[in-house]
Amino acid sequence: VAFAANGYERATVRSIAAAAGVDPAMVHHHFGTKAELFREAIQLPFDPSTVVAPLLSGPRRTIGARVVRAFLGIWETPTARESLLGLVRTAMTNEAAAAALRDVLAARLVGPLVRALDVSDADLRATLVGSHLLGLGIARYVIRVEPLASTSEGRLAAAVGPTIQRYLTGSL
Amino acid sequence: VAFAANGYERATVRSIAAAAGVDPAMVHHHFGTKAELFREAIQLPFDPSTVVAPLLSGPRRTIGARVVRAFLGIWETPTARESLLGLVRTAMTNEAAAAALRDVLAARLVGPLVRALDVSDADLRATLVGSHLLGLGIARYVIRVEPLASTSEGRLAAAVGPTIQRYLTGSL
Repeated sequence: VAFAANGYERATVRSIAAAAGVDPAMVHHHFGTKAELFREAIQLPFDPSTVVAPLLSGPRRTIGARVVRAFLGIWETPTARESLLGLVRTAMTNEAAAAALRDVLAARLVGPLVRALDVSDADLRATLVGSHLLGLGIARYVIRVEPLASTSEGRLAAAVGPTIQRYLTGSL
Repeated sequence: VAFAANGYERATVRSIAAAAGVDPAMVHHHFGTKAELFREAIQLPFDPSTVVAPLLSGPRRTIGARVVRAFLGIWETPTARESLLGLVRTAMTNEAAAAALRDVLAARLVGPLVRALDVSDADLRATLVGSHLLGLGIARYVIRVEPLASTSEGRLAAAVGPTIQRYLTGSL
C-alpha cells in the first residue's frame, strides 16, 4: 500500500511498518531490506496461469474482448489495483520494477497467451498488446483522464477488444 | 533533465542548479519554488498546433499511421524525449503532473485533432488514442520492453496505425 501510494523511492520501511501497525524492526526481520520487501510486494495480485487459461478456452474470434474484460476486472479489484499502481508507479524510475513490468508484459502474462495462439511475430504481438493495456490502465486508473476513466467496462471491451484481437490474431 | 532522470519528487532545486552549473539561489530567483520550476519544465517540447495541422492535411484514411509516425518522431528527438520522460514519470505520483498529462491527452493535442475530424464520441476517441500512445511511449521508451523498443518506426506505424485510424474515424 505504501508503495502504491508513494512509489518505491518515497516509501520507507518505517512508513510501511507504521501503516501496518508494527515495529520497523519486525519488518526488517521478516523482509530484510526495502528492496527485498519490494520484491515481495510486486508479486502479481493474481496467478498468471489462472488468468490465461480461461482467455484461451473461449472462441478465438472474440479473445480480444475477453482480454480487455479480464484486464479491467483485475484493475477493478481493489487489492489488485493497489499492487498494480505500486508496480506501475515504481517502474517509471526504478530499474528493478521496470524489469518486473517487462517480465509481466513479455514473459509471464501476455507472452504465454500469444504463444498459445500459434501466430507469427508472437513477441511483437505480445508487447503491442501489453503496451496498449498498460496505457489503458495508466490513463484510466493513474492519470484518470475523462471520459475514459468513467466509461463502462463493457463499452471499453467493445471499443478496445477489436484492437487486441488484431494484435493477437490479425495482420500486422 | 533532472526531472526526467529522477522524477519530480527526487529532483531538488540544488541538484537542478548543479546540473546547470549555476547557483541554487539563481534558480530560485528566476523560477521560484520547485513547483514553479516544474510548471516551466513541463511546457510541451513542441507547439501542439504545429503538430496537429500537418496530421489533418493528408488523406483522412491514412491519418492513423501519420499520428503514430509523428508521435514516435517526437519521442525520437532527444530533447523532447527528456521532457516527456520527466512528465510521464512525475505524473505517476504527482497530481500537478497528472493534470498536465490529462491536459495533453484530452485538451491540447489529441482532443483538437479528433474534434477537427467531426466524428461522434470525440472525447472518448481522443482518450482511447491518448491511452494507446501513452502506453506505446512508456513501453518503448521508459520500460523498454523488447522487441517493441527496437522495432522500426515504420513497422510500428504499420502495426499501430490501423488501431489509431479506427479510434479516430471508425466504429467504436
